[in-house]
Amino acid sequence: MNDPHKSAALHVAIAGLGTVGAGTLRVLSDQATLIARRAGRPVVVTAVSARDRTRDRGVDLSAYTWFDDPVAMARDSGADVIVELIGGAEGAARQVVEAALDAGRHVVTANKALLAHHGTELAARAERAGVGLLYEAAVAGGIPIIKALREGLAANEIRSVQGILNGTCNYILTTMRETGRDFESVLSEAQALGYAEADPTFDIDGIDAAHKLALLVSLAFGAPVDLAAVSVQGIRHVSALDIRFAGELGYRIKLLASGERLGDGIDARVAPVMVPLDAPLAHVEGVYNAVVTEGDIVGRSVFQGRGAGAGPTASAVVADLVDLARGHQVPVLGVPVEGLTQAGTAATPGSRPERYYVRLMVLDRPGVFAEVADILREERVSMESILQHGRDPGECVPVVMIVHDTEEEVLKRAIARIATLSTMVEPPRVIRIARL
Amino acid sequence: MNDPHKSAALHVAIAGLGTVGAGTLRVLSDQATLIARRAGRPVVVTAVSARDRTRDRGVDLSAYTWFDDPVAMARDSGADVIVELIGGAEGAARQVVEAALDAGRHVVTANKALLAHHGTELAARAERAGVGLLYEAAVAGGIPIIKALREGLAANEIRSVQGILNGTCNYILTTMRETGRDFESVLSEAQALGYAEADPTFDIDGIDAAHKLALLVSLAFGAPVDLAAVSVQGIRHVSALDIRFAGELGYRIKLLASGERLGDGIDARVAPVMVPLDAPLAHVEGVYNAVVTEGDIVGRSVFQGRGAGAGPTASAVVADLVDLARGHQVPVLGVPVEGLTQAGTAATPGSRPERYYVRLMVLDRPGVFAEVADILREERVSMESILQHGRDPGECVPVVMIVHDTEEEVLKRAIARIATLSTMVEPPRVIRIARL
Repeated sequence: MNDPHKSAALHVAIAGLGTVGAGTLRVLSDQATLIARRAGRPVVVTAVSARDRTRDRGVDLSAYTWFDDPVAMARDSGADVIVELIGGAEGAARQVVEAALDAGRHVVTANKALLAHHGTELAARAERAGVGLLYEAAVAGGIPIIKALREGLAANEIRSVQGILNGTCNYILTTMRETGRDFESVLSEAQALGYAEADPTFDIDGIDAAHKLALLVSLAFGAPVDLAAVSVQGIRHVSALDIRFAGELGYRIKLLASGERLGDGIDARVAPVMVPLDAPLAHVEGVYNAVVTEGDIVGRSVFQGRGAGAGPTASAVVADLVDLARGHQVPVLGVPVEGLTQAGTAATPGSRPERYYVRLMVLDRPGVFAEVADILREERVSMESILQHGRDPGECVPVVMIVHDTEEEVLKRAIARIATLSTMVEPPRVIRIARL
Repeated sequence: MNDPHKSAALHVAIAGLGTVGAGTLRVLSDQATLIARRAGRPVVVTAVSARDRTRDRGVDLSAYTWFDDPVAMARDSGADVIVELIGGAEGAARQVVEAALDAGRHVVTANKALLAHHGTELAARAERAGVGLLYEAAVAGGIPIIKALREGLAANEIRSVQGILNGTCNYILTTMRETGRDFESVLSEAQALGYAEADPTFDIDGIDAAHKLALLVSLAFGAPVDLAAVSVQGIRHVSALDIRFAGELGYRIKLLASGERLGDGIDARVAPVMVPLDAPLAHVEGVYNAVVTEGDIVGRSVFQGRGAGAGPTASAVVADLVDLARGHQVPVLGVPVEGLTQAGTAATPGSRPERYYVRLMVLDRPGVFAEVADILREERVSMESILQHGRDPGECVPVVMIVHDTEEEVLKRAIARIATLSTMVEPPRVIRIARL
């Protein structure tokens, strides 16, 4: 271990040479000496594969064996580790990972979609082959949160893991707040700047965050990866008006991914929520990600860093490679697959009372508020505070209420009744207030 | 790895049964099943040693072999790992660790003083013996920052590591700010509440933070542990008045431990500084610790959690034990001792221009300010802003200035001259404004 030159190099083959793949090549080359000293032996790329051999990626590929077929590379390249950076839950990415594991090669991947859909099965496959399947880069590359949950917090029963896991959404929400502009306008700008994809669905509808949450929940609670148990709501319907009211009430609206133990099950969801300004997550802005864990022994820990981009993702990929070079191997999901409990399937969101922000757009007429209050009283929903700016008889005005701890189903019933009142100009907006 | 019952247990002996030692025993017993599942095999305490066998610690010791002499236990107990929780840089703690390493046993310790003074030598000793020396619990127990620096950020050249590393100081500064009370009064209360020791010197004079910083700096920059290269200033002289002015100017005063690359050397210091309110560290309050790292590839990452206390420290000790049970072993200081560079000795603080807060207490007489301004101009120190509340002719008033980027030596010269002015009622106070 003491002399890098005495130890055989770790041979790496990289499948997928987009910005992250090219970034990883660059880091492994630029920091080769530092990495070898830390890893105890050189980490050397021997083969690469991508769709287009001729594309200029700003890195010299001549030293690597080229494979047109990444699956052939996974199987036949002779590398110790296959780094999968193709992306997607199926197709080439899945075939590459399966072929590599079956060939007894370690896998390092940044592919949250693949693991969210097939994580448990792939973990079992890695176990059977006796190899590692590492994925620090799949969740918040700038934060070593996979390692923290799997190793650093190993003494703890984790009570909750919550985070801001999608940089695109956080950038959009931050910009909406700072500029007062609406969602569509900020999204267009984010697309022009390259902060959002041409098809932004995965990000803004919360799917990407759900993929990442499914992995964190599995690790935190020792449950099988269960994407279907994550309830998902994106940020399309967050309005500039609600962001402004949030500020006035002492909150910031964030797309929060949260997993909490709830009775025998796990409550896992992605949704825009109100984060109190005194919580660290309220101040995580722009493209930053953050994760808050609550362990029974250690209490609360907060981790913050860049979420995506070539740098943070490559940094995480290389950290996994250094772990492999050092011979470090831990169960893929924190415990062996046979030790995973089935708790992940018992999500029963909504059964726990929560506080909510409710915004109504009403015609400002005498008696409007009495009607709303009557419904709330009948449904036993109690109000904590109410906010109304000025009055404008005969016109449409927003009325904002914070309601006390209420079960989601109860609130839904009350809101459904309120929505039918003739004075309601648009559907009520409901946003949960996070416990943070 | 798949069946804990098939693998031999990791045998652990614990030296020192204070709150952390007793807490560690409790965690290992209460979470035995969870830990065995994660570690791949049971982690079992076989022997313990402490000064007083009869003291009631709230845990049953009957199952463990008792040693009156912890050094004998380290040498003869047959345990795989010795956990050293005695504390102190010399004496029993040092002897236990040396005896354990020489006997080929792994060591887990929470002892920052020992490692700050003898870290490099002990790392070499562990390397020679081929065993691990783990110390996650020595720095900010609630934050897996040792692991993050040694593993999670392994791809990065670290540019800086800065943090709030002493919970006692942070509690005192937070309480001073919230209540407006002065240092002595808050310290007395903290002692009564058990948040500060009867002899608080180690904490409030910055020594404890310096110990921790010396370790972080070594890990971050691949340098030998060099406590002597850390310049240290505590919080005794932080006044309620300065805390109030800090707030008015948009800062919070924090005891900051910071290590930064500076030319060929490392600038390592512990001192009260002004932290801008928009930096995450400004919002780390009470007994919480936080660390901010800046890596060349990953950018900025922020880690926050409880610093001390039985829970967080035991959590970190057990995480190290799980690493050992999993067979995970990395170089003690991130790279083998022979690979450590000597950069740690070349600290040249003060050579980089910084911004400073300067508070003068002056007799409010005509011409006072012109004298100060003359000196600043002559010494080429330029002012960014000045703050003076009201006027009180003939009386003593505070005058606060923020000075532009200035080398420390230059500022010191100017301040020394200002201090000699006949209108100065007390020595000027200077507090650096942190780059965060």
